[in-house]
Amino acid sequence: MNNSKHVSLNLNLRGLGASPTLALNDRCKQMKKEGIEVFNLGIGESPFPVPNFVVQSLKMHATERSYLPVKGLPELRKAVADYHWQKDQVRINPDNVIIGPGSKMLMYLLLLSYYGEIVVPTPCWVSYVPQAQLIGRQVQLIHTDFEDKWHMSAAKLAELCEGEHDTYRPRIVVMCYPGNPDGGTYSADELKEIAAVARKYEVILLSDEIYAQIHHKGEHVSVAKYYPEGTIVSSGLSKWCAAGGWRLGTFSFPDNLDWLRDAITDAASQTYTSVSSPIQWAAVTAFKGGIELERYLWQVRRIFRELSGRCADMFRESGARVHPPEGGFYLFPDYSPLADNMEKRGITSSKKLCEAILNEKHVAAVPGSAFSRPCEELTLRMSYVNFDGANALAASETVPLHDPLPDEFLERYCGRTLEATRRICEFMNKGA
Amino acid sequence: MNNSKHVSLNLNLRGLGASPTLALNDRCKQMKKEGIEVFNLGIGESPFPVPNFVVQSLKMHATERSYLPVKGLPELRKAVADYHWQKDQVRINPDNVIIGPGSKMLMYLLLLSYYGEIVVPTPCWVSYVPQAQLIGRQVQLIHTDFEDKWHMSAAKLAELCEGEHDTYRPRIVVMCYPGNPDGGTYSADELKEIAAVARKYEVILLSDEIYAQIHHKGEHVSVAKYYPEGTIVSSGLSKWCAAGGWRLGTFSFPDNLDWLRDAITDAASQTYTSVSSPIQWAAVTAFKGGIELERYLWQVRRIFRELSGRCADMFRESGARVHPPEGGFYLFPDYSPLADNMEKRGITSSKKLCEAILNEKHVAAVPGSAFSRPCEELTLRMSYVNFDGANALAASETVPLHDPLPDEFLERYCGRTLEATRRICEFMNKGA
Repeated sequence: MNNSKHVSLNLNLRGLGASPTLALNDRCKQMKKEGIEVFNLGIGESPFPVPNFVVQSLKMHATERSYLPVKGLPELRKAVADYHWQKDQVRINPDNVIIGPGSKMLMYLLLLSYYGEIVVPTPCWVSYVPQAQLIGRQVQLIHTDFEDKWHMSAAKLAELCEGEHDTYRPRIVVMCYPGNPDGGTYSADELKEIAAVARKYEVILLSDEIYAQIHHKGEHVSVAKYYPEGTIVSSGLSKWCAAGGWRLGTFSFPDNLDWLRDAITDAASQTYTSVSSPIQWAAVTAFKGGIELERYLWQVRRIFRELSGRCADMFRESGARVHPPEGGFYLFPDYSPLADNMEKRGITSSKKLCEAILNEKHVAAVPGSAFSRPCEELTLRMSYVNFDGANALAASETVPLHDPLPDEFLERYCGRTLEATRRICEFMNKGA
Repeated sequence: MNNSKHVSLNLNLRGLGASPTLALNDRCKQMKKEGIEVFNLGIGESPFPVPNFVVQSLKMHATERSYLPVKGLPELRKAVADYHWQKDQVRINPDNVIIGPGSKMLMYLLLLSYYGEIVVPTPCWVSYVPQAQLIGRQVQLIHTDFEDKWHMSAAKLAELCEGEHDTYRPRIVVMCYPGNPDGGTYSADELKEIAAVARKYEVILLSDEIYAQIHHKGEHVSVAKYYPEGTIVSSGLSKWCAAGGWRLGTFSFPDNLDWLRDAITDAASQTYTSVSSPIQWAAVTAFKGGIELERYLWQVRRIFRELSGRCADMFRESGARVHPPEGGFYLFPDYSPLADNMEKRGITSSKKLCEAILNEKHVAAVPGSAFSRPCEELTLRMSYVNFDGANALAASETVPLHDPLPDEFLERYCGRTLEATRRICEFMNKGA
C-alpha cells in the first residue's frame, strides 16, 4: 500500500502497511467470502462473550453521552486502582490512572511523549516497532531465546545498560506477560531480579498485563509489586473481559512518573479527547468484578488451559519446540528443528511458512517475523480461539469446577482449533 | 503542566497543555465542587439527549464485542455515504469512508500522514495548531476579518497560493462550516468561488461539516458539491446526534485521494485499531436517520435559532460586533469597539477578558486567542448550550412546528443561557 508516485506522504508512513494481525484477519474474511473454509488462528481476540453483567451495564448507560474527562471517568479510574490492589497487591493512586481507547493508543502516545530509548524484548507484540516508525523513532530490540523461555533475563537487561557507553540513558523497557505471542509468563523470582536491575539503572518498566486474568491458573504476579516506583502497568477490557472491540485500555503510573502521565494526558486531549462514555461506565462494572466475573474466569481458564496443553502436545509431536502454555491464548511453536526439511520444500522464512500453510491448509497463523524475530526462524503464533466461546462456556459450566474437562469436551466444543492444529502438523510432516 | 526539570520528554509536548476548551471545562467542574454557581459557555457539546431511537440501537448492540475492520463497519461506511448523498447531494464511495474515534483523531492522523502545508483560516477550532505542534509541524494561518464574516474568501486563498514562490506546493486547506467558533456559514456562491480556486491550484479541501445538520434553517451546502474530486468531508455523531461523548467521527474521501485514505488507515491500525463496536452499530442507525431524526432536528434547530438570535441581539446592544447566527451552537462576539474602555480596566487581551468575566461574573467563555486570533483582539466564543436540553425539547414539541416559540419559552427553558449572556453584557458595560 502507499506505493503510488506523485503523492505527498510523510515518508514514515510509506510502506508501513496495516498491522499484520489485522491485515491477516481481513484476508481471512476475504477468503471466506470466496467460499473457502478458513481456520483463522491469526486474531488475538477472546472467543468468549462479554460477561453478561458487563453487557447489562453497557445497556444501562446507553444514554451517557457527555465528553468525559481526558484521563477518564473518576469512578473508572478508582475501579482500575482497586482492581490492581485486589488482583496484584499493587497500590495505585486513582489519580495516576489514564483511560484510553485501547492500550495500543496509550502506547503510541507514550512513544510520542517520552524522549528516551524504548527497549523491547522479542518476540514482541506486532505494533511496537511500526508505532515507533510512524513518528520516525527506533526501538531497541533485545532478542531472547527459546532456551530462556523467550524471556528477557535480568542479566540481559543489565548487559544492555552496561554495554552502551551511556549507562543512564533514559530507557523504557516493555514487558508483556502472560505473553503475546509466547503464551508463557515470568516467575516471581525472575520479576524480582528484573526489578532489581531496573532500579539500579533507573529504567522505567512498561508492564503490559492485559492477559493477567487469563493466567491459566489465576496466579498472575505483577513486576510492579517489586518495583512500584518505576513501573507503568497496562491493562484493559480487551482480553479477560473479551471486549476487544469495545476499545478500552488503561495505564497506571507511579507517583513519580506524573510528568509522563501529564504529557500523555495532554497528547490525549489533542487526539482522542476521551474514551466513549457508555463504554467507560460499563468498564466500571467490569473492573469492580465480583463473583460473576470470577465464575466466568474460572471456566475461561480451564478451557484455555486444557485446550492449549493439547495443542502444544500436538505441535511437539510434529517436531516443534514449544513451552508449556501458562497464560493468554497464544502458542508460539518453533519449527527450527525441521529447518532442513523445510528448506528442501522452499520454505526458508516464517513468512513463507505461514503463506504456505494458509494456501495449502487454509489455516491462518502469524509468522514469527511479525513479532520482530529473525526472518529465517521458523516460528509462528497461533491463537487458540477459533471456536464458539459461548457454547464452550455453557458446556463447561456443567462440569464440576475442580474436575478436568471430559475427554471428548475439546473435540466437541473446540474442534475447529484442534483441526487447525492438526492441519499445521500435517503440513509440517508432509513427506516425512 | 510539564514544566518539571529532569524529565525525558519530547520537546514538542513540553508546555503543550490540554485543549483549552477541555481545560476550561475541568476548571468549571472544580469551581462547582467548591460551591460556586458557574455558567459554563465554554464546552462545545449539544445540550440535547441522543435521539431515543439511536440509544435503543446502542442497547440492542451491547453484545457486539469483536474488533471491527480498521476503516469501520461496512454497514456504517455505507450509511455515511448514503447520508452525504441524501443530505448534501455529494456522491461518496462507501469504500472511501473512514470511521475514527472522533474526527479530531482523524484530523491528527491526516496531519501525521500528509506531507504538505496545512492552511487554516482563523478563527479556527482550537486543536489544529497544537496537533501540528505535537508532531513538530506548523500550520499556515490565514487571518480573516469580521467584515468578511470571518470567512476565507476565494481571493485570499488565491493570494496565498500566488504569494509564495511555490504556487503548487502541496496544500490542504481546512474549512469548518457552520462554523466553530463563528456560528456562521458559507453561501453556495462563496463555496463555488473557493472550489474554483482550489481546483486551479490543486489544493485539497478538508471540509469539516460536523455541524451540517445544525444549520439553523436546515439548508447546509457542502463545498464537495462543487469540488468533489478534491474535498475530504468530515462529519460524525458529536454535534447533530448530541453524542460527543460516544466518540465517533467520519472522513469521506474522493476516489483520487485513495493514497491519503490508505495512509491514514495504516496509521489508524497502529494507533486506535478501530472504533468501539457497539457505538459503530448504533451509528449505523443514526446515519440512516429517518423521520424520528428529522423531527428531533426540527426542534433542535428552532430552539438554537431563536436562542442564538436573542443572545446575538444582547451582545450587539452591549457594544459588540456580531454576525447573525446561521448554524451550530456558538456565537463569536467581537468587543473590539469597546477596546478603549477595556484598556482602562486593565483588559488588553481576550484571555484577560475571559479571565475577568469568569472571576467576576462566574461565566466561562473561551478567548478568541484560543482560536488563533490575535491576542489583543477582544473576541470570545460562547456556546449557547448551558440549559436542560431534554426539558426544552419536550416543551418545544408542544409548539406547532411552523410557529415561533412563545415569548416566555427562552426565559423558561434556556434561562441560564440568557442569564449568562446578560452577565457578560453587564460586565462589558460596567461603569459605562
